[in-house]
Parts: sequence; structure tokens; C-alpha cells
Amino acid sequence: METALAKPRLGLIGFGAFGRLTARHLSPWFDIHAHDPAATDADGHATLTDLAVAAACPTVILAVPVEALAASLTEIHPHLRPDALVIDVGSVKVKPARLMEDLLPPGVRIVGTHPLFGPQSGKAGIAGLRIAVCEVRAKRDARRVAAFCRRALALKVFQVSPEDHDREAATVQGLTHLIARLLLAMEPLPTRMTTASFDRLMQAVDMVRHDSPAVFRAIERDNPFAAEVRNRFFALADAARGDLDGG
Amino acid sequence: METALAKPRLGLIGFGAFGRLTARHLSPWFDIHAHDPAATDADGHATLTDLAVAAACPTVILAVPVEALAASLTEIHPHLRPDALVIDVGSVKVKPARLMEDLLPPGVRIVGTHPLFGPQSGKAGIAGLRIAVCEVRAKRDARRVAAFCRRALALKVFQVSPEDHDREAATVQGLTHLIARLLLAMEPLPTRMTTASFDRLMQAVDMVRHDSPAVFRAIERDNPFAAEVRNRFFALADAARGDLDGG
Repeated sequence: METALAKPRLGLIGFGAFGRLTARHLSPWFDIHAHDPAATDADGHATLTDLAVAAACPTVILAVPVEALAASLTEIHPHLRPDALVIDVGSVKVKPARLMEDLLPPGVRIVGTHPLFGPQSGKAGIAGLRIAVCEVRAKRDARRVAAFCRRALALKVFQVSPEDHDREAATVQGLTHLIARLLLAMEPLPTRMTTASFDRLMQAVDMVRHDSPAVFRAIERDNPFAAEVRNRFFALADAARGDLDGG
Repeated sequence: METALAKPRLGLIGFGAFGRLTARHLSPWFDIHAHDPAATDADGHATLTDLAVAAACPTVILAVPVEALAASLTEIHPHLRPDALVIDVGSVKVKPARLMEDLLPPGVRIVGTHPLFGPQSGKAGIAGLRIAVCEVRAKRDARRVAAFCRRALALKVFQVSPEDHDREAATVQGLTHLIARLLLAMEPLPTRMTTASFDRLMQAVDMVRHDSPAVFRAIERDNPFAAEVRNRFFALADAARGDLDGG
């Protein structure tokens, strides 16, 4: 009990699949107060609470869909401590960084993060997995968050600008989710006479199969570089179609 | 030496990447005589020889591209033993089965196989990997080949008709190679802030990256069901493009 009382309080806004994963890995270090109107149980890693209580913690993590971020920021605004540290975990970084800077009070410190894993890929543990950390307001805080991720969570940390993140994620996530969406639409797919390369392809699909439509929308629509990447993919598909039909 | 002399002779027509993989795994059981005008060394698993010598072995394996199969069959025809067992290893099965039945002498026994692996996916050993075995002429021979693959090579064996094979391979290989071709055309791709699912996707690509263009052509053009599968993929890509651009 003494250890628990000694832990700093952390507010978690959003307790969906990713919020729960966050609580599971941060609960050894923080006393987590989670708010989510849709949540009915706390998995033993957090205490479910009111928005006002969660938002008043010294550190507040926003684990909400990118498309719900602006509304969440407005909601937590009146409850935030003047020097709170606010962190988002969205799949894109340019848009959340801009929203947080625009909508949060001036004294509030802001760090953007993108854990490059999810409930599926992090199922067996997150040590060795990757996270992007973006400085938004105050360099020192981004460095502290990066150091925590590295030391406490054993993550591989990439400190990058929101722009550099989104440019790279447009390819990494944009292509993965687009290809997965096409393959999921073709199911049922063979499971019997498969090749090792097809098995890898389907493992990739399985890792994003249960991601919410909101994750797909964030990756494809809220990343300013996603359209360029997928248009290139579609153009190459058209060219391949022409080659194969014609030759 | 005595063991070597006791081994039955096997003719291998074609000593490219897949022919070499074949020789490596069959040389403990067979005295392999390989013919390939383009080959200059035998890797220690075979003796390079004339077409006439290789084609006169009791068992003859054709490890040539599907598009070169008809020419190879015509070439080996005059040298075959009346009761030879001829086996192909092509990525499609309907077309090779028909060609072998049409072009080989009546007494010759014929089995179609498709090892569902290649030099990349079989690099660390082939035990546990998959092979399709198709009866073409004489059920007994297909059963014997299947039993050998299972017992001697520890492969997972699927005894199927050429049609059933091609229908399933149209999806498994057609999609894998098509997606790999599109991703290869987009290189250089990120290697730094990647996700586990993107890593799997690229592992799939790496396994077929060095496959010859002839393999791609066999999979996409010589499989009677490939056009249907890829047209479905392209139609879904068009629909996704419409959704993403429109919404």
C-alpha cells in the first residue's frame, strides 16, 4: 500500500483498447485515474473516475481517437493544473500537435507520442518495440518522456518532429493498413497450401485486423502525407494491371 | 563411396536457384545428374552432364520455368526411358500437367509437384514446409512421391488436383507476388520507425524479392485463376481509393 500511495497520479482520458494497454504498462509507475464514459471495468490497472478528477492529475494522457481529440482537449481544459504535462498517443502527430498547442492553456506542457504498436503487436510485451516522441511545447519534457520510455518501458525511442513522423508513418502505416483492408475484404483467404511469404502477409493483417475504423481514418485521412503515398500505390497498381492484362 | 554407388540416379533438368535447392535436399537419397547449359558449377550436390544423360535417368525432375517447360519436354522426349518417372516443380499445375500429358510418351509416369517454398524461405531448412503433389499419370506414383516428401524430406504434403492447386495458389501466390511487386516499386521504404505489422509485410517481400521475372509471369499469367483474383484486388483498390478521396 505504501508503494501505491507513493506513486504519482496520472490521468488517462479514454479507456478503449489502447488506453487499457497504456494502463497495464504504466501502472507499476503511476496511480492511474482513467475516464471513459464507455468503460465499465478497470482491468485492475486503473481507477475509473470523473473527467474532472482524471484531468486534474499532474500528467494527463489522451488515449482517444485523433478525430475526438479536439473535443477532449476542450473538455479537459477547465480541469487542468496550470503546469500539467499533457501527452497524446495518436497515430499521426502534425494535427494533434497543432490542436494541443492551439487549445491548451499557455503554461501546460505538451508532448506528442506515437507508440508504434497496439494491443495485438504488444500482446506478448512491449520491451523492444518502438515509440516516436515529438517535442511540442518545451524540449525538456519531450526528453524526459523519451528517457522514461527508454528506461522504464525498454522501448526503442525515436525523437522526431511531427512532420518527420507523419512523413514516415504515411508509408509505414498507410501502406500496411491499406493492404490489410484490401486483404480483409477478400476473406475467406486460403489457410492450407500457403507459402511462408503469404503467412507473413497474413500475420501483418492479423496485427491490425481489430484496429478500429477510427485508427484507419486517422492514418489515411489525418496524415498530411498519406494521400501522396496511397496515390503512388494506386498508380503502381494501375500500371501492373495494364502490364498483366496487356502482355 | 559404396553408399553413393547404391543411390538411384536422378536427372535434374535446369540448375538455376530452384534446381540447386532441389539437388541440395535430394542428394542424400539420389545420385543427381543435372543438365543446364547456363550452369558452370555443381555446388557439390550434383554432377553436371549432357541433356541425354540427365534425361535417361529413371527419375527426371524438370526444374525449368513454366514458360520453358514445353521446349524442355520436347528436348528430353527422345532420351527418356519407356517407364521413366517425370516430375515438374512449377508454381502452377494445370498447364504443366496438360503439357506433360500431351508431350510425353504414353508409358512415362508423370507427377506434378509445387514445393511451396523457394531459395529464400527454404534457406534455413525445408522440414515443416509445404508441397503440393498432383496425380497426373498413375495414382500410385503420386502417392509414392507424396510419401517420399513426407518421410524423407519432412514436408507437409497436400495431394490435390491441378485445378484445386491453381485455384488456391492464385490467391496465395498471386496476391503475395502482386503486393510484393508494388512495394518493391516503392523502395526505398522506411526501416526506422516501423511497426511490427509493416516488418512482417517487408519480410514477406524479402522472401520473393529475388524470384525471377519468370516466376512472376508463371504465377500471374499461367495460372488460369490468377486474373480473377487480381481483378478483385484491383476493384477493391479502386473502391478504397474512391472512399478515401471522397469521404
